[in-house]
Amino acid sequence: MRLVRFGPKGEEKPGLLDRDGRLRDLSALTEDFAGAAVSRAALAALAERGANEAPVVEGLVRLGAPLASVPNFYCIGLNYAAHAAETGAAKPTEPLLFSKATSSLAGPEDDIIIPQGATRVDWEVELGVVIGTPALNISEAEALDHVAGYVAINDVSERTFQKDRGGQWIKGKSAPSFGKIGPWFVTRDDVADPQALDLSLAVNGAARQASNTSDMIFSVAEIIAYMSNFMQLLPGDVIATGTPSGVGLGMTPPQFLAEGDSVVLEVAGLGRQVSKVVAA
Amino acid sequence: MRLVRFGPKGEEKPGLLDRDGRLRDLSALTEDFAGAAVSRAALAALAERGANEAPVVEGLVRLGAPLASVPNFYCIGLNYAAHAAETGAAKPTEPLLFSKATSSLAGPEDDIIIPQGATRVDWEVELGVVIGTPALNISEAEALDHVAGYVAINDVSERTFQKDRGGQWIKGKSAPSFGKIGPWFVTRDDVADPQALDLSLAVNGAARQASNTSDMIFSVAEIIAYMSNFMQLLPGDVIATGTPSGVGLGMTPPQFLAEGDSVVLEVAGLGRQVSKVVAA
Repeated sequence: MRLVRFGPKGEEKPGLLDRDGRLRDLSALTEDFAGAAVSRAALAALAERGANEAPVVEGLVRLGAPLASVPNFYCIGLNYAAHAAETGAAKPTEPLLFSKATSSLAGPEDDIIIPQGATRVDWEVELGVVIGTPALNISEAEALDHVAGYVAINDVSERTFQKDRGGQWIKGKSAPSFGKIGPWFVTRDDVADPQALDLSLAVNGAARQASNTSDMIFSVAEIIAYMSNFMQLLPGDVIATGTPSGVGLGMTPPQFLAEGDSVVLEVAGLGRQVSKVVAA
Repeated sequence: MRLVRFGPKGEEKPGLLDRDGRLRDLSALTEDFAGAAVSRAALAALAERGANEAPVVEGLVRLGAPLASVPNFYCIGLNYAAHAAETGAAKPTEPLLFSKATSSLAGPEDDIIIPQGATRVDWEVELGVVIGTPALNISEAEALDHVAGYVAINDVSERTFQKDRGGQWIKGKSAPSFGKIGPWFVTRDDVADPQALDLSLAVNGAARQASNTSDMIFSVAEIIAYMSNFMQLLPGDVIATGTPSGVGLGMTPPQFLAEGDSVVLEVAGLGRQVSKVVAA
């Protein structure tokens, strides 16, 4: 299933994009897509309750972030060797973990907002994993059984806030709109292999990132099993699994987003984000 | 008001400890204490709706974490000069920010669980701030108007996970039970000055930490204003404001928690946590 949330900001309803590309209103069939409503059991029940026959929504409506009330928005850093190299960092020997404020979440069509005082706002296309059952101290072999599905992510980052303002990365990862997810939350059964997805991103029409999740240093299963040694993952948690090379920080000279820029991002099978960059 | 959540784990109800120390059941007067229910407006309405006359709960019941569905669990590091010195770190020139997994939250009487593979589990008594209205790019003068109230926190930390497993601190801060909060969520009107609160912690009866929030390098107002430049703070967000000196890592030789230990923690006016240490 390709699940979405549609409607005005703050009033989104859960929906489904059916096989013919029609938007269907699931609000009579499910709670909003958050916590228990994205557990693997709830998603299986949703399919059985006739999500594919739910009322069609006509006309053009805004798509919001496909998940609400995300309990934790985790990120893996430097998970593609070429990206680690372009930022001047060593290839990590175990997954590098940080987090974004959940208030950074925004929908796929929402503007990327340059925060006050920001000078180096950068892009990062990533595969996002959505957890579907609690996971604590699990093995790599079990890990994908804890996945509810996948989302495309732009892990927008302010490099000065991230690197030069006190050591921990969360400061540069958390401004409103810095966690653009969607358009679709694709359930796990519709993603044959999370390690075989093309990722791409263009700024003002110029290709900047183009890679495949097969290039990840640590796989989705390895990341989940590893993280579960340090924390209990919860249904609805999102994990951004790292960005490939081609970020603005790695360009010569470095290049960052400016008011008026357009950013187009796609992860194969998970949909496309088209965003305008605006000042706060 | 001294607000609490009481009942079996996962089934807690909102309650109030009245001026005579009686527990009153607020579940007919409010949603669970999360998000909008801890907004400043909702808390003001709760007082007016007769929280002090709600039904008394008789007998001894478990107190859980006084907040549910926390959107973000932020922490300030090295915010007391003597603690920075004991860990060998320089005194920060701006607040050091990191986060804990929200799945680390536990109640004041719950056990501290040593995670699998952990060898250096440490204690950290802290003043916790609960946000009551959204805050983005606000000034220090406005900051305390965005506070809903305060909680005592034990920011339990595994030092090897925190420092030696990849750079970002979240790994050592996030295991289940590592975010012990409560017993009381005290509304802001009942805390005359957040910069004049005694903090103390003892392990097996031996005093380990004893300080006062007047020793903080960055005040609560400075922290909130500063953070609001990097992220939008949301109602229900918790900010642990840093620990004073006296952690196990700073002892000679370092000393860490072991199965069977007892930890007693108190922040003046915010109540007392009594915890046993157990193995996972």
